[in-house]
Amino acid sequence: MGSIEVDRTTTGWAARDPSGILSPYTYPLRSTGPEDVYIKVIFCGVCHTDIHQAKNDLGMSNYPMVPGHEVVGEVLEVGSDVTAFTVGQKVGVGCIVGSCKQCSSCKSKIEQYCNKRIWSYNDVYVDGKPTQGGFAGAMVVDQKFVVKIPQGLEPEQAAPLLCAGLTVYSPLRHYNLTNSGLRGAILGLGGVGHMGVKIAKAMGHHVTVISSSEKKKEEAMAHLGADAYLVNSDADQMQQAADSLDYILDTVPVGHPLEPYLSLLKVDGRLIIMGVIAQPLQFVSPMLMLGRKSISGTFIGSIEETGEMLEFCKEKGIRSMIEVVKMDYINKALERLEKNDVRYRFVVDVAGSKLDA
Amino acid sequence: MGSIEVDRTTTGWAARDPSGILSPYTYPLRSTGPEDVYIKVIFCGVCHTDIHQAKNDLGMSNYPMVPGHEVVGEVLEVGSDVTAFTVGQKVGVGCIVGSCKQCSSCKSKIEQYCNKRIWSYNDVYVDGKPTQGGFAGAMVVDQKFVVKIPQGLEPEQAAPLLCAGLTVYSPLRHYNLTNSGLRGAILGLGGVGHMGVKIAKAMGHHVTVISSSEKKKEEAMAHLGADAYLVNSDADQMQQAADSLDYILDTVPVGHPLEPYLSLLKVDGRLIIMGVIAQPLQFVSPMLMLGRKSISGTFIGSIEETGEMLEFCKEKGIRSMIEVVKMDYINKALERLEKNDVRYRFVVDVAGSKLDA
Repeated sequence: MGSIEVDRTTTGWAARDPSGILSPYTYPLRSTGPEDVYIKVIFCGVCHTDIHQAKNDLGMSNYPMVPGHEVVGEVLEVGSDVTAFTVGQKVGVGCIVGSCKQCSSCKSKIEQYCNKRIWSYNDVYVDGKPTQGGFAGAMVVDQKFVVKIPQGLEPEQAAPLLCAGLTVYSPLRHYNLTNSGLRGAILGLGGVGHMGVKIAKAMGHHVTVISSSEKKKEEAMAHLGADAYLVNSDADQMQQAADSLDYILDTVPVGHPLEPYLSLLKVDGRLIIMGVIAQPLQFVSPMLMLGRKSISGTFIGSIEETGEMLEFCKEKGIRSMIEVVKMDYINKALERLEKNDVRYRFVVDVAGSKLDA
Repeated sequence: MGSIEVDRTTTGWAARDPSGILSPYTYPLRSTGPEDVYIKVIFCGVCHTDIHQAKNDLGMSNYPMVPGHEVVGEVLEVGSDVTAFTVGQKVGVGCIVGSCKQCSSCKSKIEQYCNKRIWSYNDVYVDGKPTQGGFAGAMVVDQKFVVKIPQGLEPEQAAPLLCAGLTVYSPLRHYNLTNSGLRGAILGLGGVGHMGVKIAKAMGHHVTVISSSEKKKEEAMAHLGADAYLVNSDADQMQQAADSLDYILDTVPVGHPLEPYLSLLKVDGRLIIMGVIAQPLQFVSPMLMLGRKSISGTFIGSIEETGEMLEFCKEKGIRSMIEVVKMDYINKALERLEKNDVRYRFVVDVAGSKLDA
């Protein structure tokens, strides 16, 4: 029925157990179905979630697991019903590769909230086979979950936008926080946080970076263009900034107190949580009530928003700060990422790496 | 300067220490300033917050303290600059009796979020004297914090609306949750919760009452008109109701887990917290993220919304369920309220009580 039937394999780097150490792994790829796009991976960004998954921090990992969900590649082949993509085109794949297409979330084009969404890796596809991510030579992906990379955006630059960039862009868009002049803050200056500074600045916001030490101050202000810098342990600074922010993008991926940040919000301000954190977060109710404040959680963004965000980044000239590495550096990269020792996103040069052992 | 200078006192019932036991207390009232309304108290509702304050549960109580912030009275005298009220009129006073009138919250007519708001009792007025509430013969209140009780609304019925009714009406209004057909739930069927059922039903919502036992089921469905009833310890019921609600009004005034309720919300659903709770509340971030859900806190409502809500209740024929008591029953009433042993709000018949010892 339009499928391109071939016996295809690819080699990726897979975690084998909760040590999270990746090593070469060869596995079959499905044939290119009528709605599928067969993609040669060129670059793939490295996200903190990849560590959580590889190490089974969330208790739902299956091995072998090939991580990677910030995938930029080149179309090698398209199924018979694919009209939007052509061979040779640069495309992107993010965190999800499937959804039910029928629920209210899917119909509202926020398929990331479909209860039957299928993750790019560590999930089971509709054919019953495990999904595997972008730390691999190739992927076969339903066209609905593939986006075009706009001309003029370098592929290695585009990779971190597909998760980190989208993760900050989507809530600002959804919660009507795009107007110039808003005052926002970014909590946690990692891969997602640094995209937050860049995207919020490009929207014309006054952007404060909140961090645990002075260490990243020059970096945040001189290189990323932040307007202000707050050290969360400095009670005077925090007090002076009370009731001053329209929103905070909370990108911290580990447990942390919320109250110091709630106090920084204006009336009707919103703390937007985007880090998957196993430990409970807590707050006392008057901190929300006495300012009609909200704590919201958002999760990546939609495919539609991905296209919009890529265009926005291209138009505004937003470039992520990345460190490009080869695949055989991935274990070291994960180790450094866990210590937050990267400015600000590792991107694996998959096409330029030797993937076999 | 237009003040009506008299040496005036009134007698109320005051807590003297953290035992929270109330007894008669006579204290001076300020003269009726140009902007003031001098009010004879007729009825005053009893709110759970009165217990927190009387017993110093929040650690900021000053004694002697006359509680009471659901006050309906009759105008005895107005200051020279008061044009909206006339002697003999029925009026209401709620939780706050002052604000700065200059900050952005005051200018936006959400003076309940002014950082300089003055509580009806257990606060210090602009003249440096303690504020005292409605469990007393009379109050003198700035006209900006006085509302008219619409004709046709009985004064004892109106009393619980001034805090309990407003507390549920305001967030539904503010968060655009007034459309007919929405699915909402009320967590906690006390004074605020029962108003929640009535007001949400009057807006045309499908209303679920969530409780800890079957005990209030018939009451909720037959008498209050709820459409559904959920026992939070019944895993099957809770599972069946997952992802079904647009909002939950969380009126529980003591610590409780949030996660069971977050799971009941649809994508973009909102858990609205309205109980002042000293213990931290907690949740894990994926519970919010994987449905773009929000936890919001709201606090009573504005004076403008109070007027609107009173009209709404009058038009819709909403009547609160109350137990009217005399002032010498107040300590017993507080004791019973603490055990949630009231259907659903005590209202003190202040004008019909002997206030002196």
